[in-house]
Amino acid sequence: MATITVPQVVPSPAEDAAALLKAFEGWGTDEQAVIAILAHRDSAQRKQIMLEYEQNYKESLIQRLQSELSGDFERAMYHWVLDPVERQAVMANAATRCIQEEYPVIVEIACANSSAELVSVKKAYHALYKCSLEEDVAARATGKLRSLLLALVSTYRYDGDDVNMGLARSEAEAVHEAVRDGASGDHEELIRIVGTRSKAQLNATFSCFKDEHGTSITKALPRWTDPTGYARALRTAVRCVADADKYFAKVLRNATREAGTDEDSLTRVVVMHAEKDMKGIRDAFQRRSSATLEQAVAKETSGDYRSFLMALLGS
Amino acid sequence: MATITVPQVVPSPAEDAAALLKAFEGWGTDEQAVIAILAHRDSAQRKQIMLEYEQNYKESLIQRLQSELSGDFERAMYHWVLDPVERQAVMANAATRCIQEEYPVIVEIACANSSAELVSVKKAYHALYKCSLEEDVAARATGKLRSLLLALVSTYRYDGDDVNMGLARSEAEAVHEAVRDGASGDHEELIRIVGTRSKAQLNATFSCFKDEHGTSITKALPRWTDPTGYARALRTAVRCVADADKYFAKVLRNATREAGTDEDSLTRVVVMHAEKDMKGIRDAFQRRSSATLEQAVAKETSGDYRSFLMALLGS
Repeated sequence: MATITVPQVVPSPAEDAAALLKAFEGWGTDEQAVIAILAHRDSAQRKQIMLEYEQNYKESLIQRLQSELSGDFERAMYHWVLDPVERQAVMANAATRCIQEEYPVIVEIACANSSAELVSVKKAYHALYKCSLEEDVAARATGKLRSLLLALVSTYRYDGDDVNMGLARSEAEAVHEAVRDGASGDHEELIRIVGTRSKAQLNATFSCFKDEHGTSITKALPRWTDPTGYARALRTAVRCVADADKYFAKVLRNATREAGTDEDSLTRVVVMHAEKDMKGIRDAFQRRSSATLEQAVAKETSGDYRSFLMALLGS
Repeated sequence: MATITVPQVVPSPAEDAAALLKAFEGWGTDEQAVIAILAHRDSAQRKQIMLEYEQNYKESLIQRLQSELSGDFERAMYHWVLDPVERQAVMANAATRCIQEEYPVIVEIACANSSAELVSVKKAYHALYKCSLEEDVAARATGKLRSLLLALVSTYRYDGDDVNMGLARSEAEAVHEAVRDGASGDHEELIRIVGTRSKAQLNATFSCFKDEHGTSITKALPRWTDPTGYARALRTAVRCVADADKYFAKVLRNATREAGTDEDSLTRVVVMHAEKDMKGIRDAFQRRSSATLEQAVAKETSGDYRSFLMALLGS
């Protein structure tokens, strides 16, 4: 469930657009007014506001926001006002340009969406970039990282709950053998399994793996050195498929570490999930931390960026 | 365009269902009456007839047809009355069970459909088989055949006309190098290109290939021996992407050779395309043959099977 809050009585899109224009005008921008409006409207409402703004004031709201705001706040707001499906296409495209570092974005989009949602993102990708996500991933990644990411973004996974337990047992063994042998294991087989099976089936396989070998698949995945980033991407995919809430909670925990905040990851997870499933992520965060997610975010951020994230987190 | 003909005034689904029941009853089945109805109704009308038949007579029309008809005629009619999208899912599933011989079915479904149509087939596959087409292909094919077929069925290709000519030139070279080296070529790269690029982009690449090397890609593809069937499947995919009408015309030419008719391929192409794009295939057939498609089919088939195919071909 979402964490954003929308007032019971919402102003008309024209009123919101006028209030935004007012916030932009005069000495400096009234960032709090911008947050008070845009962080408390759902995606359909934000879309209406953008249309109304452009029609009435003959300029793009996104471009105006980019010129009025700055830093992490601006980047977060830019992604927030995009349509959720287009936003993922934009983020995926940016990630393909720096794929060895940004592979988590691709893995998350491929593994945390339903199959139908992933097709929508790929359709938006076609419209925006006149090519497919698959060809950009294939052309820009190399080696096993390419095989894995291409499999993840390509497959239209079965979304149902039906599970074949015999298959889960035999594939748990195949996974075990590949993992046991580290870099020299049969990763083609491992990628086939992780890349095509349904989430329910994979979770049954991971469960058999744990029963049989006394350790979870995520702990068993060896951390061998791999210049293409494949080993890390594989771990990311397995964790994201096994329990998306727990995975995102961990991304947020890492992003809000005292040693240094990772604003890009923090923004990405909050913006992409605030309107969707952030409550589950927040609960998963709380289960493994002494602080709540809101406390952690508040501690590691500041200014308008903090106000904006806190608003998206519902506090 | 389609070749089937639907009368200007169509009986109601209840009337058609009653006429079918009448054709089944008494001494022997009146096959001509069955053809006169079902070969001249479009998929929406056939669906209505099936619903009406089942409701009024408490039995499945498909099962009754299977018990009343026999041989090639029965197999053709069974596939014809299925919903076009479900029919492809059923055919793809059957092909995965015998994938080294039946790979053309998978290649055709992956390459001759639009991206949106392919997603619909995959969605129907989920509903029918409680798993994905991708996992069945991945689990049942091996080696390079698996890599190729999995790439083809997975990718959500860009469907637009935008082409990058610089890319076409560089990928034509990559294709040339892989093809030149036969079995030892870089087939991962070749599969990436054929498996992810849009049809417009691939056709630009194949065109650059011909300009540069004086021979078409289909002629240049070496016919090396490959136990998995990869080389043949690659040729099938390239021909299907390059010109689907010409490809299907050639399948029909091979299927109606004097040396022996291939009823499975003949039925598949006629049933799958009669309501869609058979006119283009028929024209492509005529351009390379002394006989028309109708003449070739009439010569190599007989009885009710012939009558049915001729009706689907619009003669």
